Amino acid sequence: MKNINNSKLRIIPLGGLEQIGMNITAFEFEDSIIVVDCGLSFPEDDMLGIDLVIPDVTYLKDNIDKVKGFVITHGHEDHIGALPYVIKEINVPIYATKLTMGIIENKFTEHNLLKSTKRKIVKHGQSINLGMFRIEFIKTNHSIADAAALAIYSPAGIVVHTGDFKVDYTPVFGDAIDLQRFAEIGKKGVLALMCDSTNAERQGFTMSERTVGRTFDNIFAEHRNTRIIIATFASNVDRVQQIINSAYKYGRKVVVEGRSMVSIISIAAELGYLNIPDYTLIDVEQMKNYPDEQMVLITTGSQGESMAALSRMASDMHRKVSIKPGDTVIFSSHPIPGNEKAVSKVINELSAKGADVIFQDAHVSGHACQEEIKLIYSLVHPKYAIPVHGEYRHLKAQAQLAQSLGIPKDRIFIMKSGQVLELDENEPAKITGQVQTGAILVDGLGVGDVGNIVLRDRQHLAEDGIVIVVLTLERYTNQVLAGPDIVSRGFVYVRESEDLMGEARKVIEEALAYCETKRISDWSKIKNTIRDELNNFIWKKTKRSPMILPIIMEV
Amino acid sequence: MKNINNSKLRIIPLGGLEQIGMNITAFEFEDSIIVVDCGLSFPEDDMLGIDLVIPDVTYLKDNIDKVKGFVITHGHEDHIGALPYVIKEINVPIYATKLTMGIIENKFTEHNLLKSTKRKIVKHGQSINLGMFRIEFIKTNHSIADAAALAIYSPAGIVVHTGDFKVDYTPVFGDAIDLQRFAEIGKKGVLALMCDSTNAERQGFTMSERTVGRTFDNIFAEHRNTRIIIATFASNVDRVQQIINSAYKYGRKVVVEGRSMVSIISIAAELGYLNIPDYTLIDVEQMKNYPDEQMVLITTGSQGESMAALSRMASDMHRKVSIKPGDTVIFSSHPIPGNEKAVSKVINELSAKGADVIFQDAHVSGHACQEEIKLIYSLVHPKYAIPVHGEYRHLKAQAQLAQSLGIPKDRIFIMKSGQVLELDENEPAKITGQVQTGAILVDGLGVGDVGNIVLRDRQHLAEDGIVIVVLTLERYTNQVLAGPDIVSRGFVYVRESEDLMGEARKVIEEALAYCETKRISDWSKIKNTIRDELNNFIWKKTKRSPMILPIIMEV
Repeated sequence: MKNINNSKLRIIPLGGLEQIGMNITAFEFEDSIIVVDCGLSFPEDDMLGIDLVIPDVTYLKDNIDKVKGFVITHGHEDHIGALPYVIKEINVPIYATKLTMGIIENKFTEHNLLKSTKRKIVKHGQSINLGMFRIEFIKTNHSIADAAALAIYSPAGIVVHTGDFKVDYTPVFGDAIDLQRFAEIGKKGVLALMCDSTNAERQGFTMSERTVGRTFDNIFAEHRNTRIIIATFASNVDRVQQIINSAYKYGRKVVVEGRSMVSIISIAAELGYLNIPDYTLIDVEQMKNYPDEQMVLITTGSQGESMAALSRMASDMHRKVSIKPGDTVIFSSHPIPGNEKAVSKVINELSAKGADVIFQDAHVSGHACQEEIKLIYSLVHPKYAIPVHGEYRHLKAQAQLAQSLGIPKDRIFIMKSGQVLELDENEPAKITGQVQTGAILVDGLGVGDVGNIVLRDRQHLAEDGIVIVVLTLERYTNQVLAGPDIVSRGFVYVRESEDLMGEARKVIEEALAYCETKRISDWSKIKNTIRDELNNFIWKKTKRSPMILPIIMEV
Repeated sequence: MKNINNSKLRIIPLGGLEQIGMNITAFEFEDSIIVVDCGLSFPEDDMLGIDLVIPDVTYLKDNIDKVKGFVITHGHEDHIGALPYVIKEINVPIYATKLTMGIIENKFTEHNLLKSTKRKIVKHGQSINLGMFRIEFIKTNHSIADAAALAIYSPAGIVVHTGDFKVDYTPVFGDAIDLQRFAEIGKKGVLALMCDSTNAERQGFTMSERTVGRTFDNIFAEHRNTRIIIATFASNVDRVQQIINSAYKYGRKVVVEGRSMVSIISIAAELGYLNIPDYTLIDVEQMKNYPDEQMVLITTGSQGESMAALSRMASDMHRKVSIKPGDTVIFSSHPIPGNEKAVSKVINELSAKGADVIFQDAHVSGHACQEEIKLIYSLVHPKYAIPVHGEYRHLKAQAQLAQSLGIPKDRIFIMKSGQVLELDENEPAKITGQVQTGAILVDGLGVGDVGNIVLRDRQHLAEDGIVIVVLTLERYTNQVLAGPDIVSRGFVYVRESEDLMGEARKVIEEALAYCETKRISDWSKIKNTIRDELNNFIWKKTKRSPMILPIIMEV
């Protein structure tokens, strides 16, 4: 892997910086590109009606001949969710660990992509060769099993990419993070470290997943006479394992509710990541055959998602499970920023139904806090630091940590999506360019057909509704044959608005008369006159600005 | 105050239960009603386009002859914000402490209500007589100065209402909460305690406001060479005082930015609640005459509100202040649930501009935690407990505290808005009825003219936009003279949708042909046919359900 041509390694994040989600980074060396992760993000509050957001991969399409494959760190949506959309255009092989691949394949089955794509499972400790790159998968811990960090060997040097990670010395399933290997690679000399910043603002260490198991045991011991319902993230297989362990220990049967939960549990069990004692798991239909104190329900909805199983139970919309006074409901989760109110709503509904709701101490994060980040920096000892995974504030917090560990400020890069960072061992790294990136909105079946104009219209409609003015004019003479008819939606109660609409009609008629006097016959000018006059009138009367849409027909 | 007729006291919360905000409670005894507080609440996420929410006071209007006055505990929006709307219909005297009244009068000036209303300032320790009631104002501490608890004396017994409060032994301004008076009244025998539940889920004590002053001093000492910008709640006069103190101590001038901040500071200074050393406060225009290290800006926007001063500075929209690298920005606040993402956005923008953002340890809550709540219960020793101020989860948490203190479960009432609780010393209290209550939505100048149908339409429009189909038919024959024209907004990019709209037109023409064959001439049936067919077609093609609005004109 000697760098004969003195070429440089180019690191190009195509998403995932300045935001949580949509992680995707291209590594380019001469004729080779590899892509680490291919995630989606969830819509911001102002992206009305949007289902999900995927990265713009124009740069990869433009360099399709160079792209050797996708290397995936773990199976969370923000790292794999855009694959079904992107793979249709960039159909290159996908490399991932076993569980991660199982989750990808489940997705691909739904999208009918299983036959048309190449996939290869890689074990921790194994390496793959892709063009000028060699990529080694290193065992880490995270809130989903089988997460990997990557050591990316290029002729310009080694880059270590942590993926999402935490240091768990006592993981529930499998081994602890392979700190020895981080150290070994660090000893060889690492050009750059790209490290998870999600918790970089938090001091100390993230607790071991195993501590949650002890909390479950305590809660189960204290609530022997009630039904227990636990909401958690579908993908946290270790969490589910610990619930099953506690259930088994306390002689309870387990029911799983929520589509994504059922799906992940079956993948994990099939692939050996979940150990379910015989006769423990029962179907929701069988629940009636067991007394409450012998039941545990594991369910989705820990983020207050309105369509998830727990929310439907809380609001009496679930067909099979109703909340009863005395039920113990555990939120084994922490609200993701933005979901606090939705979670609180569900807690209120559950409490009002008499449930005992527990939402403390039954969760730990999957991301490294400051002491763990410092540990990885100390083991890897990189020349350059490139904080990844997080909003700007998180990236900056990690940059400050890196600086406190002695990395000079000019060797720390807080990158923006689309920036091209060129680096090697010889010259100072620098940002040398910018490629096209962006967020592509997915709404129903439409990918990219909702953009800023449509969103702006939706926001306008959401704020004050719409007032439609319809006119039929006679061709040539522009004489009004029918209308103006006024129809409104989302503006004001119809019965409240009769007077207002009567006056509005007069305003429109005056606008039309004005157009006639001024001999304005251009329809777009007539429409603009109606829009302006009506807009002024409505604002004056109501201090609202509905969208005003004049439509002219001719006969 | 002997109860000769054995009448009962009726407590009727008209809002404020099961939610944060919109606090208003009626106390009724025979021919007398007094109303404690008259707050607004801010719109929920699904109340699109709504500015604020006020309580339905039909019960007071129906009993207008009995209503003796509004008694206000403190000057926060959730306790006084609905007064300008409600007082127009229930014009009775308002009683409040000096600063609270100053804030109310400022509001009334804006609403042009100052001359038409009666107001009386009450001091802590004073009592007022209103019909069958006597109401004593008791000094408390809160995140706004001049907060009061109320002892409400009726012939049926004494009710203590804490208002929003905390126990601050070392307040910044004025006295600590009058715990002796709580104890004294408790000794007399208290029928019911209505106690603030906001922090009832939190263990321990809320820290003294004064601790924030020490944090400011430390931050000022550590950042001697940079400009300091501090965002906090406009109404937290004591917080502002402490910023001014630190500024004075460290030789800095103070600029105040943000309309509500300027307004409250001038009221507070005028009424003597704020002590500003001479030459400390300067105008924003003068800022250029001082070096950065001699400046402190106090600003609104600590909740990430997009139109507030700090957000405008962060996004380069503020006309007078730009963020510079090195600026120290302090969030002296905690995000109110629902605002986390907005706050984070502002932090990211500030960080990206090179500001050093501090958002820890520079705030304390204004509400009592569990130990303080227990203290008040122990001093007041009420027969009945009626937790107030909070969502269900908070009310329930206080109910559990009350129970842990020995109050029997059947003497603890978690009330719902509109319920009537009847109580006296003799018989067990019970809920005896329900009066009309509700949320009235204010949108622009419209009070109550936006209801569920309008909101549902706005949500529908926000989700998938609107598709309008316009037709001109010949009168009598129903022959199509013009159209169908299709116009959409917020649905899909126009250039993406040409094919789709072409096909949609065919679907509509087929629907019209069908109506003709079946001799359907009723317009509403024709419209329904168009709507159904087009809806099916669009769902199949896009998996979206825009609002479909057929409009028929006749010539």
